[in-house]
Amino acid sequence: MKGAFTHLDRRGHAHMVDITAKTVTCRLARAACRVVMRPGTAAQLAEGGATARDILETARVAGIQAAKLTSQLLPLCHPLLLQDIHITFTVAEDHVAIGVEVGSVDRTGVEMEALTAGAVAALTIYDMCKSSDPDLSIEDLCVWEKTGGRSGSWHREEPGDAVYSDA
Amino acid sequence: MKGAFTHLDRRGHAHMVDITAKTVTCRLARAACRVVMRPGTAAQLAEGGATARDILETARVAGIQAAKLTSQLLPLCHPLLLQDIHITFTVAEDHVAIGVEVGSVDRTGVEMEALTAGAVAALTIYDMCKSSDPDLSIEDLCVWEKTGGRSGSWHREEPGDAVYSDA
Amino acid sequence: MKGAFTHLDRRGHAHMVDITAKTVTCRLARAACRVVMRPGTAAQLAEGGATARDILETARVAGIQAAKLTSQLLPLCHPLLLQDIHITFTVAEDHVAIGVEVGSVDRTGVEMEALTAGAVAALTIYDMCKSSDPDLSIEDLCVWEKTGGRSGSWHREEPGDAVYSDA
Amino acid sequence: MKGAFTHLDRRGHAHMVDITAKTVTCRLARAACRVVMRPGTAAQLAEGGATARDILETARVAGIQAAKLTSQLLPLCHPLLLQDIHITFTVAEDHVAIGVEVGSVDRTGVEMEALTAGAVAALTIYDMCKSSDPDLSIEDLCVWEKTGGRSGSWHREEPGDAVYSDA
Amino acid sequence: MKGAFTHLDRRGHAHMVDITAKTVTCRLARAACRVVMRPGTAAQLAEGGATARDILETARVAGIQAAKLTSQLLPLCHPLLLQDIHITFTVAEDHVAIGVEVGSVDRTGVEMEALTAGAVAALTIYDMCKSSDPDLSIEDLCVWEKTGGRSGSWHREEPGDAVYSDA
Amino acid sequence: MKGAFTHLDRRGHAHMVDITAKTVTCRLARAACRVVMRPGTAAQLAEGGATARDILETARVAGIQAAKLTSQLLPLCHPLLLQDIHITFTVAEDHVAIGVEVGSVDRTGVEMEALTAGAVAALTIYDMCKSSDPDLSIEDLCVWEKTGGRSGSWHREEPGDAVYSDA
Repeated sequence: MKGAFTHLDRRGHAHMVDITAKTVTCRLARAACRVVMRPGTAAQLAEGGATARDILETARVAGIQAAKLTSQLLPLCHPLLLQDIHITFTVAEDHVAIGVEVGSVDRTGVEMEALTAGAVAALTIYDMCKSSDPDLSIEDLCVWEKTGGRSGSWHREEPGDAVYSDA
Repeated sequence: MKGAFTHLDRRGHAHMVDITAKTVTCRLARAACRVVMRPGTAAQLAEGGATARDILETARVAGIQAAKLTSQLLPLCHPLLLQDIHITFTVAEDHVAIGVEVGSVDRTGVEMEALTAGAVAALTIYDMCKSSDPDLSIEDLCVWEKTGGRSGSWHREEPGDAVYSDA
Repeated sequence: MKGAFTHLDRRGHAHMVDITAKTVTCRLARAACRVVMRPGTAAQLAEGGATARDILETARVAGIQAAKLTSQLLPLCHPLLLQDIHITFTVAEDHVAIGVEVGSVDRTGVEMEALTAGAVAALTIYDMCKSSDPDLSIEDLCVWEKTGGRSGSWHREEPGDAVYSDA
Repeated sequence: MKGAFTHLDRRGHAHMVDITAKTVTCRLARAACRVVMRPGTAAQLAEGGATARDILETARVAGIQAAKLTSQLLPLCHPLLLQDIHITFTVAEDHVAIGVEVGSVDRTGVEMEALTAGAVAALTIYDMCKSSDPDLSIEDLCVWEKTGGRSGSWHREEPGDAVYSDA
Repeated sequence: MKGAFTHLDRRGHAHMVDITAKTVTCRLARAACRVVMRPGTAAQLAEGGATARDILETARVAGIQAAKLTSQLLPLCHPLLLQDIHITFTVAEDHVAIGVEVGSVDRTGVEMEALTAGAVAALTIYDMCKSSDPDLSIEDLCVWEKTGGRSGSWHREEPGDAVYSDA
Repeated sequence: MKGAFTHLDRRGHAHMVDITAKTVTCRLARAACRVVMRPGTAAQLAEGGATARDILETARVAGIQAAKLTSQLLPLCHPLLLQDIHITFTVAEDHVAIGVEVGSVDRTGVEMEALTAGAVAALTIYDMCKSSDPDLSIEDLCVWEKTGGRSGSWHREEPGDAVYSDA
């Protein structure tokens, strides 16, 4: 079953998979995660005033920038040109849910770019809230959906994709 | 309670907190997270052969490199010089636990550097295992301990810090 | 009139505009600026000896490098591959005029890349001349012309585009 | 008078000035610039609603991030650790004034970091407003004040430093 | 014969060559180098245990990452998207031979990307072995072969390309 | 003898060596290499006209910039702040010799920074000369001298350090 890890060559060494022969198609990926926090912290963010807005806008910009840096952060990711990045936040009772959509016209999928944007947006919220709430944690960072490419569309088989419903 | 968010100035705008007057001390932070996966995927990594080793070594290098890029990823993080980065992996039945220790002699804490290293190490494992296991998710990314600085030592009040026990 | 800011989505949040459906065409942009300085400083640069040449060559290299980093500096800029960067300097009585031409075959315009190259070339001259002339300032940084893309050609309606005439 | 350009060595070649023997002191620099625009564009930003706020917050984050990248952009700038970055915006009738304060405890001044933050904040506003206003230009980018270091304090001898008065 | 240096324009200034009109084709380049070391150091790496493996894997990851950063390191290199990077190591009696293959579908060749990957992989081995062997040196860093593009295939006319034979 | 590789921890995994307890001292390193080329190519560079000067100045700027990026390129290098970078070129009959001096006041040595600057300066010359001379190679990249730190001064025991004699 060793061959299942496509980022390793036939000798088991890390390499960047050759995609020169793959077809250029329009690809989209959606990822999500949650920054779990004390209800009091979430309430401050939910009020929606200038303070909350500035924290979330800073996280949004950080996430967008990180998506563009994905191939510099993850060693075996192919560099590619993102043509669409959209990040949404939904403040709930004890967490902020982060949703990311990324699109590209290229030879490989963009799920790692969506995950990286989500991770860095979450870390930015963590950074800005940690002085008032040391109990933060980042949960459920995963891909929800991808379309385009040879393998066709895929979406995670779980209920309750609330992240995208009201963002 | 607005002042609790120290990354916002008195008008509520994002700024990088002035730490010029803070004392240079030796600071340490420990963070952790888990990459949750199918037992079959974890079993492949647990076998410990060359394949598993190369995946974890690639993630380790990516995490170390990311720790050094933290202030370029998180807008309000101060740049600082890390003098110690150590990342460990523990393969369990249905996940890989990642532990990060970061040290610096500087004017501010290094918990965001430890978290960033953990996040990027986890994303690298995600990237290298996703072709054989699409159900991956990253969980429980949080700071466990910090020492040094004016506020003294702190550690998360939770049982079972198994990450560090056998790594 | 809110919709006029295309970098904000329908809720007013920053996002990277979706250009996946746009046509790939050859695009060109020209930007310019001036580094205003004391006549004595400009005279040193105008002499054209090795010293002047090294200052301007350093600024040229810095500008070329910065053009390639544009999408990492400006949050909502799409990453794109520049295929042509040309920077010229014209030393006048009390300033150095900087002209930049940038070309790409892509889905979006390259005016921000031309502006970024101009800004960083100007800042490099500022850096290298500031010890002998503290009165420097950077003026008139703007786009002069763009071609390619759906909206066709555009050039700034002002007289005296002297920057390009003798560079 | 060749020696006046300290970034060139005795043969006239670019080098990074040796500052190993300089004293570590607390250093501060203030820079400013203006993004000149149509009164209608400025009015939209002056309204202060969510749209205006998001444009300015995005520019603020971009400026803070750019200050940290200064030594990667300007070839002869020494790398240093910024401990304080503060960016303010003042919307006037036909422009946005940008003020930057940067602080560090190091061996060399931070005026190029302040200028770089101002330039990139201005370029970000340019990027986000250019679709509705093609007549933008960036003006008067210069250092206003610096303190710390052997040469003592310095401030530009000009009237009307309005940038900082109400920001 | 001045025109032979295509990276200089007709006035002798550095510029990024305009390749907008060139054809997109599949391009490949192979480069190699050797890290020369004491036989005792090479013997430790040749044993192939975990220690040796981790040093070479770290170098492999560093080389892959560096290939993607080539246009940020070399001022006149065009940015391009690599779609294939493969690095091999062969431990010999007194050196480690490094072989790099890089592929891209673009308008220009990728030999500088292959060379940069080789240089950084070699420097990483240097860094990790220097504490036990101060006599290291990096030799014979050069391009061995390139295919694709208008000028067709080319390979260095020298005997003994042993680097690729047993890697 | 496994412990000789200090970049591996007691389990043989890569880590960044803990230097928090080391003393801050002034450290200097000198590295060198040669870009070997056809005599005709070297003759063009030796003429010393504007063309040659621009090639060497571009390489000098690239080398200076690369020294500052060393810890981003080499995974186990500690980030540190360089306070002195000086690069010289000596054109000989069949090569360009590159000499690099780097200085820092920090807890660890700067030899990898000097080597990285030399490698990237050499690669830049390679890039700019390769269209007229495909037989280029980079040779003898190694550290020549280091001072500062606990282990005291060290210099390579070889005759003929001609690189520095006439640069």
